[in-house]
Amino acid sequence: MPRERLVVIGGVAAGMSAASRARRLRPDLEIVVLEKGRHVSYGACGLPYYLSGQITDWRELVVYDADFFREQRGIDVRLEHEAVRIEPARKLVHFLARNAREGSLHYDKLVLAAGGAPAERIPGADSQRVFTCNDLDGTIRLRQFMETENPRSAVIVGSGYIGLEVADAFVRRGLRVAILERSEAVLEGAEPEIAAQVEAELLERGVELIKNSVAREIASGSGDHALEVRHGASAAHPADLVLLATGIVPRVVLAESAGILLGPTGAIAVDDRMLTSVSSIYAAGDCVETRHLVSGKPCYFPLGTTANKQGRVAGENAAGGNAAFPGVVGTLATKVFELEIARTGLSVAQSRAAGFQPDSVFIRSTSRAKYFHGQQILLKLIWDRPSARLLGCQMAGREGVAKRIDVVALALQARLRVPDLLYTDLSYAPPFAPVWEPLLIAANEAAKKLAR
Amino acid sequence: MPRERLVVIGGVAAGMSAASRARRLRPDLEIVVLEKGRHVSYGACGLPYYLSGQITDWRELVVYDADFFREQRGIDVRLEHEAVRIEPARKLVHFLARNAREGSLHYDKLVLAAGGAPAERIPGADSQRVFTCNDLDGTIRLRQFMETENPRSAVIVGSGYIGLEVADAFVRRGLRVAILERSEAVLEGAEPEIAAQVEAELLERGVELIKNSVAREIASGSGDHALEVRHGASAAHPADLVLLATGIVPRVVLAESAGILLGPTGAIAVDDRMLTSVSSIYAAGDCVETRHLVSGKPCYFPLGTTANKQGRVAGENAAGGNAAFPGVVGTLATKVFELEIARTGLSVAQSRAAGFQPDSVFIRSTSRAKYFHGQQILLKLIWDRPSARLLGCQMAGREGVAKRIDVVALALQARLRVPDLLYTDLSYAPPFAPVWEPLLIAANEAAKKLAR
Repeated sequence: MPRERLVVIGGVAAGMSAASRARRLRPDLEIVVLEKGRHVSYGACGLPYYLSGQITDWRELVVYDADFFREQRGIDVRLEHEAVRIEPARKLVHFLARNAREGSLHYDKLVLAAGGAPAERIPGADSQRVFTCNDLDGTIRLRQFMETENPRSAVIVGSGYIGLEVADAFVRRGLRVAILERSEAVLEGAEPEIAAQVEAELLERGVELIKNSVAREIASGSGDHALEVRHGASAAHPADLVLLATGIVPRVVLAESAGILLGPTGAIAVDDRMLTSVSSIYAAGDCVETRHLVSGKPCYFPLGTTANKQGRVAGENAAGGNAAFPGVVGTLATKVFELEIARTGLSVAQSRAAGFQPDSVFIRSTSRAKYFHGQQILLKLIWDRPSARLLGCQMAGREGVAKRIDVVALALQARLRVPDLLYTDLSYAPPFAPVWEPLLIAANEAAKKLAR
Repeated sequence: MPRERLVVIGGVAAGMSAASRARRLRPDLEIVVLEKGRHVSYGACGLPYYLSGQITDWRELVVYDADFFREQRGIDVRLEHEAVRIEPARKLVHFLARNAREGSLHYDKLVLAAGGAPAERIPGADSQRVFTCNDLDGTIRLRQFMETENPRSAVIVGSGYIGLEVADAFVRRGLRVAILERSEAVLEGAEPEIAAQVEAELLERGVELIKNSVAREIASGSGDHALEVRHGASAAHPADLVLLATGIVPRVVLAESAGILLGPTGAIAVDDRMLTSVSSIYAAGDCVETRHLVSGKPCYFPLGTTANKQGRVAGENAAGGNAAFPGVVGTLATKVFELEIARTGLSVAQSRAAGFQPDSVFIRSTSRAKYFHGQQILLKLIWDRPSARLLGCQMAGREGVAKRIDVVALALQARLRVPDLLYTDLSYAPPFAPVWEPLLIAANEAAKKLAR
């Protein structure tokens, strides 16, 4: 009798987590991973730091390489194998391998971890000087370009966290950087007070910020610059290279070929066991939508840490286990130059869109005791006025921000209310915190507003 | 008609928080603070950093001085006024002021914030070379001593967090330091794996650690050293100065004079409104016991941050409001040389004593992504085997520890169970965290043990 076979499509965060988890639970299972690129199991969130040179060698980003999975974990990793079609009726995956070699594989269970793709292609984006920072191969190519072609200037289209992290990396490499943002503020979903702080940080570092203007076309440049990005009605900005960072969209072509249902966000719909609408097919990572535990609604929130968790759950269930992924509360942290930014839950606007009646407070506090030279922390706390339920929190500051958001993330998961945070026993010592934690100060301000 | 009068006994964290909160709610109230020392409203947790010289001037520790409270807040702060007796039947506080002047004050409401006193006095502790780091006056005296007498060596009796913080301060000032600890490990309540890491840090910094030996007497020294600390059966250790850091006990003499009931810990018993057993008398800070939200039992857990919160609640209620202090989960953080230590909840032994059936995991992880040069984090997670309820967590590491404990503090407050932490949406970005947070790794290990 042939061994039962698990096929995993995609070998980055979600895919390799699924394969590894399944292997741990089922030593008997045959596990095949089809990865279209040349690398597996790398930390995609570290790509901007490889660009900047803070990570010297891309191999440092690779947690384990394909040989490790083959030899140590008995996982049949096939690089440069692109899955092109799924036939659920026959339980077949068709793929295209190196040199256009076609093939197909039977599966008993399938985990779809196809990831996401850059959201937007504009005319001219096929130039050799236009890049994304979405996968390892493309990012290696961008760094090689910077090291061999000595570009002096860059335009970054989009100011999400990838755009901002790459702006930081480019400035470290000595490039003049302009960011082109279609809306009126950076970092979609950021509260105005936080976005303003981020913009101040960018300007202080010499980054030019062009807001309220949509990139129309990337064309050949004139004079000193190889390219120009045409935007808005008639403006243009010269650049030696362009980075597209307008977000990612789920890769769903394969899922659609299999008749798998998509959800309202356009990503693959899964239940809490990461099972799709088609039996024996699980999905995880940047190709799926997930439940937002605050709004209660499906959301598309593609992040490496979520992909790892979902992959683990998908792998466990594909191996016959019974794990559940509860959803996310929308936690996000990053560092732009010296400014740490973190958020969790819903913004005021997102709260309103989700049917809440949000209210908020914005406070300034410090990261440590005053007499211990604390740095300023900005904090906005958002709650639902009728119920006092916590909805979200956003923070910015030069230290002590990223891990401070976690306590609110857990509060949102546990559906806590403002009064629950008034006297929470958070850690205090002068080198780490002020006597009244910023969050407790905000909760007390919120309680005052609730009492009015 | 005379104004209603609130008298507050004690002007440090709890006392001044109570006075300030009452003033904010009741502009009409007469508020008198009796403080036996010469300073109010200082950050007692910063005293070791004043000793080390990291804080240059003790005035930096004073949040607001007595004149500020008098002039800006209309609070009648009376320094060097020691309350000596309370007569609840007549609503009188008797005090002893400068130059042995006696007096008494009528109160309508009273807040008792008398603080704590060094736990243990041993023979010879009245020497001019024996100190504590318990209040500002005494600590100023110790720093003056170090700066004028040039001591070269110190013995610290006790290895709680104050003892360890002062050891750090003494080493920074070039003293040879020995710590004398009566039990078999430093930091009472620390799990063995964490205590071992602290001891390794002390030894690496040249601190001598003498364990399993009780200080019997401080005597005059022979030869080069002014003192010797006699300990154990017949040992002695020379020193130029001695610091007593064997913990503090609640000051309850005044409360007892008023017939106020003490709780099982020996500290003043209060309800969640910080009201004592005697009407119109509230108490807060290091003189009261509080409810431990994990054990459900009264505990004595004197900390500055708790004192501030309790003082605020007492002040609000004394002013006619209705605030409640829920209790503590036992969160504690400190830094010993380069090692951060933090804990919350119960240790394994404390869990057992509280009637739980504790189980635990101990893991090593990192503070950041591997490729971002994270520092090692040690983490022990403790839960109740039958219910899977979380009971406590302890951590140590060179960065990213103190604020990481907060998420567990909130989990304990919300009475969460191990499964609740498996996929919590904690923040991730390479400069701040590994993809799998140490806490989530520990929760997954715990879940494996629970599934067995």
